[in-house]
Amino acid sequence: MTHIRFSLTQTDGNARTGALHTPRGDIRTPAFMPVGTAATVKAMLPGSVRATGADILLGNTYHLMLRPGAPRIERLGGLHGFMNWDRPILTDSGGFQVMSLSKLRKLTEDGVTFASHIDGSKHLLSPETSMEIQRQLGSDIVMCFDECTPFPCTRDEAETSMRLSMRWAERSRKAFGDRPGHALFGIQQGGVHADLREESAESLTKIGFDGYAVGGLAVGEGQELMFSTLDHCVAHLPQDKPRYLMGVGKPEDIVGAVLRGIDMFDCVMPTRSGRTGQAFTPRGSINIRNARHAEDPRPVDETCDCPCCTDYSRAYLHHTHKSQEIIASMLLTWHNLRYYQRLMAGLRDAIAAQQLNAFAARFTEQRQAGDIDPL
Amino acid sequence: MTHIRFSLTQTDGNARTGALHTPRGDIRTPAFMPVGTAATVKAMLPGSVRATGADILLGNTYHLMLRPGAPRIERLGGLHGFMNWDRPILTDSGGFQVMSLSKLRKLTEDGVTFASHIDGSKHLLSPETSMEIQRQLGSDIVMCFDECTPFPCTRDEAETSMRLSMRWAERSRKAFGDRPGHALFGIQQGGVHADLREESAESLTKIGFDGYAVGGLAVGEGQELMFSTLDHCVAHLPQDKPRYLMGVGKPEDIVGAVLRGIDMFDCVMPTRSGRTGQAFTPRGSINIRNARHAEDPRPVDETCDCPCCTDYSRAYLHHTHKSQEIIASMLLTWHNLRYYQRLMAGLRDAIAAQQLNAFAARFTEQRQAGDIDPL
Repeated sequence: MTHIRFSLTQTDGNARTGALHTPRGDIRTPAFMPVGTAATVKAMLPGSVRATGADILLGNTYHLMLRPGAPRIERLGGLHGFMNWDRPILTDSGGFQVMSLSKLRKLTEDGVTFASHIDGSKHLLSPETSMEIQRQLGSDIVMCFDECTPFPCTRDEAETSMRLSMRWAERSRKAFGDRPGHALFGIQQGGVHADLREESAESLTKIGFDGYAVGGLAVGEGQELMFSTLDHCVAHLPQDKPRYLMGVGKPEDIVGAVLRGIDMFDCVMPTRSGRTGQAFTPRGSINIRNARHAEDPRPVDETCDCPCCTDYSRAYLHHTHKSQEIIASMLLTWHNLRYYQRLMAGLRDAIAAQQLNAFAARFTEQRQAGDIDPL
Repeated sequence: MTHIRFSLTQTDGNARTGALHTPRGDIRTPAFMPVGTAATVKAMLPGSVRATGADILLGNTYHLMLRPGAPRIERLGGLHGFMNWDRPILTDSGGFQVMSLSKLRKLTEDGVTFASHIDGSKHLLSPETSMEIQRQLGSDIVMCFDECTPFPCTRDEAETSMRLSMRWAERSRKAFGDRPGHALFGIQQGGVHADLREESAESLTKIGFDGYAVGGLAVGEGQELMFSTLDHCVAHLPQDKPRYLMGVGKPEDIVGAVLRGIDMFDCVMPTRSGRTGQAFTPRGSINIRNARHAEDPRPVDETCDCPCCTDYSRAYLHHTHKSQEIIASMLLTWHNLRYYQRLMAGLRDAIAAQQLNAFAARFTEQRQAGDIDPL
């Protein structure tokens, strides 16, 4: 089995398009990864996720280690077989969720001990245990164990946290070892500070990874600060490896980050929004609960080719969402994932044609036009 | 457009197999109709319902008249287009749900006035309004408006209630008129009393319907009394029209009723059970929440060809159901509907081969063997 390889086919300004080649299939970049937290992309069958155009899913180490447990998933043949998805899976390290979801955390140089948010049981996440759990899951792209620096925080806190993450990155690299067919990504930290981002990028590059993630953004700093920080983040990362902006984001965040040289994204937004009745369209997002949709025979998005838009009216989605019917979550999730994948395909095509600026301008213009005309 | 026609191809004792021919497709009998209460078979896309083998769905007039409202559905092109199901739909009359779900009911000779369980708004259901609502929905098989006699009740109450239903049946017939391509079914009442069932059958036959339903059973009387009553019910219904046992039922109830000459069934059991983690198998039903399934790599039913059984383990269903993931409801509902449709196909084939007694004996024997051997 060969190592995972990244190939670029075209650039346009700082943006790039290409593919990450894995034994389980190619990941076309820029790529959006739907989130399958607990071994399921919520309200979707895997075949339907694939039909939206997804090449790769993200699984959450924190959730899976607590329930059903990584050794159990390993005994059952790994996460791919367990959840019936045979294409690539990226797993996060658990570091972000342990900070946002667990209780009774204790952070030391070794790692984080914490109590499960499900049953209070005690667990340790460290670079070594995170690598072992991600191996048991059978992850194709493994993430280093890091501390996600909170925002806001002082410069000193950002520095201390980033340096801990860099020591953990080195331990993660060592614990991961050499696993043909599997990739290990480093995670850059440093908050919104350009010099810390540079230092972090240098530390990671020195260790050497198959890809580099930008961590600690989209945590409340706002789009303007995120974009200006991102310029510093990307400047010092290797050109020939994929760059992954973790947890991002809104469609407009993705477009801006692709313009700045990011290749991979993940976010719960399309799936979570689908369950709460929000639908993405080229003309902005709509809330299907709004009374104006109650008798609207038109689809959510007249330009979309997903089953939600080809087979159902806004009126039907309004009715089933208000009636708390599962089908509303199924259809709106499907549509939102398809919207995101169409956006990524549009970005890839625009970069390939070196027309990304025109694409981005049209993207913004359409959204400013607002929702389709009232009936 | 021609009238709906029923053809029998074979009989075996009192059981029959054939088809009801409608402009929207044939309904193979004995038939099981999945319940699509609020314009959706819960947790299923219509294409998936069809893939289980369903020829027809049931819609609930009571729910649909309250939300989103029958005039709205009519303006949106009818229930078929609204919910994306182009095959036959049978709608009940609303009579049963108004008794079980609504508040502040007042029953008169004219009909039932009641308050919506959703928003307290006032409504009237009568033979005439029920026919109009079912017409607005675009129902292919319309049910007479009747009073479902409660159980237990005195003989006098059963008689009074049945005779009211017969007067309502006559008004329903008159209000329905002549609608080529659409059928009207009468509903027999009379509780567990043989003479009342006979009187009711004679009243309905005299009015003349496209099919005859047995109402007021499976309301708590138990299987033994239901079967013995059913013998009296069926004896006086026309041979050449379909017979529909409303709201039934468990797999063993269906087998027993087919042996007694019933052609059509509906029940929420496969769908509701799917959402609560119960799965039907030829060897009886299992509760996927049970800890013994937590690491079981085998499918719910090794003999089943549905996606739940071909693509997922009991361990996965246990995990996702316990994690309250929507996919568990999607997969178990799909499996249960497929189980029911395979049962119906087995019954039809057995009748066609005049081997129904052997089929029924094998059905009982397999269930007595219990769940598959422990790991």
